[in-house]
Amino acid sequence: MSDSLTVKIPAVPSFAPAEYTLTSVKGVRAAGVRAGIKASGNPDVALLVADAPLAAAGIFTQNHFAAAPVVISKAHLLRSHGLVRAVVVNSGNANACTGTQGEADARAMCEQVAALVGYPVEQVLVCSTGVIGVKLPMDKVRAGIDLAFKELSSDVEAGRRFLSAIMTTDAFAKEACAKVGDALVTGVCKGAGMIEPTMATMLAFMVTDLDVRAEQMKRALTSIAASSFNAVHVDTHTSTNDTLLLLSTRAVKSAHDWARHVEPVARRLSWLIARDGEGATKVTTIQVTGAATDEAARAIARRVASSALVRTALYGNDPNWGRFTSQVGNAPEVRHAKDLSCVLQGIEVFRNGEPTAFDRAAASRAMASEDVKLELVLKDGPGHAVVLTSDLGYRYVQVNAEYTT
Amino acid sequence: MSDSLTVKIPAVPSFAPAEYTLTSVKGVRAAGVRAGIKASGNPDVALLVADAPLAAAGIFTQNHFAAAPVVISKAHLLRSHGLVRAVVVNSGNANACTGTQGEADARAMCEQVAALVGYPVEQVLVCSTGVIGVKLPMDKVRAGIDLAFKELSSDVEAGRRFLSAIMTTDAFAKEACAKVGDALVTGVCKGAGMIEPTMATMLAFMVTDLDVRAEQMKRALTSIAASSFNAVHVDTHTSTNDTLLLLSTRAVKSAHDWARHVEPVARRLSWLIARDGEGATKVTTIQVTGAATDEAARAIARRVASSALVRTALYGNDPNWGRFTSQVGNAPEVRHAKDLSCVLQGIEVFRNGEPTAFDRAAASRAMASEDVKLELVLKDGPGHAVVLTSDLGYRYVQVNAEYTT
Repeated sequence: MSDSLTVKIPAVPSFAPAEYTLTSVKGVRAAGVRAGIKASGNPDVALLVADAPLAAAGIFTQNHFAAAPVVISKAHLLRSHGLVRAVVVNSGNANACTGTQGEADARAMCEQVAALVGYPVEQVLVCSTGVIGVKLPMDKVRAGIDLAFKELSSDVEAGRRFLSAIMTTDAFAKEACAKVGDALVTGVCKGAGMIEPTMATMLAFMVTDLDVRAEQMKRALTSIAASSFNAVHVDTHTSTNDTLLLLSTRAVKSAHDWARHVEPVARRLSWLIARDGEGATKVTTIQVTGAATDEAARAIARRVASSALVRTALYGNDPNWGRFTSQVGNAPEVRHAKDLSCVLQGIEVFRNGEPTAFDRAAASRAMASEDVKLELVLKDGPGHAVVLTSDLGYRYVQVNAEYTT
Repeated sequence: MSDSLTVKIPAVPSFAPAEYTLTSVKGVRAAGVRAGIKASGNPDVALLVADAPLAAAGIFTQNHFAAAPVVISKAHLLRSHGLVRAVVVNSGNANACTGTQGEADARAMCEQVAALVGYPVEQVLVCSTGVIGVKLPMDKVRAGIDLAFKELSSDVEAGRRFLSAIMTTDAFAKEACAKVGDALVTGVCKGAGMIEPTMATMLAFMVTDLDVRAEQMKRALTSIAASSFNAVHVDTHTSTNDTLLLLSTRAVKSAHDWARHVEPVARRLSWLIARDGEGATKVTTIQVTGAATDEAARAIARRVASSALVRTALYGNDPNWGRFTSQVGNAPEVRHAKDLSCVLQGIEVFRNGEPTAFDRAAASRAMASEDVKLELVLKDGPGHAVVLTSDLGYRYVQVNAEYTT
């Protein structure tokens, strides 16, 4: 006997645009155009060009199947010692699992931009996102790049067009900014889990005018990413194309603690990615403290964040301490599980290995929020970590299960 | 704007009862009674008693929050050197996260049975399954044990009552058997993922009359479990109470390769558990070959099996090679990802790091089966492993997300 079920699909959230975007940083121009790579006709080629050289650092996917543009951009960044003149992006096709032709195509995109701007090819970076395993339609890409170059502008609207041309399955545009004295930190990103046959890559571009050298950026970016983009768990998959770039015109003198102004922007962007988990209704911040080491804390937090049972409980506003704590109990990194306490939205639901007599209905109401915090407290040592996860509801299944030709 | 969605809920499968059950083995009596532990009034106390001592071996949960009955049964098995006279089980309450009172209660259950059968307490094992964090209602448990003892019988029906009294959220009864010359291998089990607030423990009881010593059993059971119960991935959670017991009357002389007759029964039972994943429509056997080591193969297979994206693709009959291979690409255990090939239901969809030109519609049709096979072939070494996983559909979300008081 087969039965049917009617379920509510959550509304798509909307967020006000940020006050500043990439082109708000002086000396940075951008464009986003329709090149016909996407069947939908939506914008799919984005270009960012700087009047003066940008200091740059990047973090790239560690997936064994790193896509051609990742291979090329990493090599260019190395050869140019972190000096960048332009970034070209296409959406609708990830240029991943495309063999040697894929690398030639990614290189050709950089060469075309290099010729247009008049700088060496290693000063151009390239990113792609979209379907994998399909060769790039290079005629369309080439025409798109020419068009984007003509439309480069320093308007705020041009920055927004850049953003719209990097999006794929995103339900909403993602941008964030901070004003730090005379300096700006701006960022845009795309990403929302992975939809067949697209592996919906995370791409993030942050542009600032803080005066930071490329080597300094490189060191700081790892720790910035650890508390932001690398703390997002929407799925266990990292894509073939994930790329985070931090770029600076270096026009405004900055203090030694410049990174603490960049980190909140990165965090906001990564929160938006988690919020856009397919069919997500909330972002849950899982904080582990008291683990033996930070590494142990991260492993425990990730184990909790990756559980489909935990994520469905979050979707259902179910204060299900058993699911949260049993995942901690499953973690080999835990030393003294009996000391575990668990605080959900400020309510202690589990103390020293046993449940408390908390008010389940009140806890459930507290979970009905766009922002949920789950604190897992151990007494193993000083290790702590934070991971963001999206919840898992009917819409996730709908988006991910339906077979489409 | 919130929208609604009507989805089809898969039918609950049904399977014919096995030809033989626990009580088909000569000298074994069983019972299953209603003690009122479950609010539903369903059977919840099960008892198995042997006329002569049984050789026994067990495998227990490795969760840090191992429940009281696990602690007690492990200790008894150690003290009795694998000699068992009786096994008592209650469902409806897992006696987990219940502190020192929980251990006293588990011990009291064994003591009561020991007094009834007239053997030392360490020859009695105890298992519990059901809600966690709630103390056992010992008055009901005691009365249930007394009643079960009176109703002990060697009928086939008594074996079936034992089985029904260990079930919790199971959608169907799970049993399997094999006849090996004059000997029997029988087994029953329960388990189907985890439902709030129950952590739906896996309990499996196998009874045979093959003449095997306890020490031999102990050694073999680890490898039997590796290819059966420990190969099931329904969720990333292992419960506080998971227990597998192998018991033998030792009445029928057996060959040195006796374990190969036990393994298929264990495999069938574990397949049934995967089939009963909440809302599952199929069992997918994920086979990794050519990994550097067996351990690497197991880690890779588990990574693929645990992905919500992979499991939704399986639900949707979506031959989504990108999801399968990207999880392999994420595995640090992989050495040469570019050599990866992927065969889905006999159809090669990915070869040496690139997708093949396979017929997607045909592959999708081939996936519309209760039994799906996904082969991931590497060229790193001789390592291989098999993991079973259930798919993830709307019913999973429904069962796991709804908050119930």
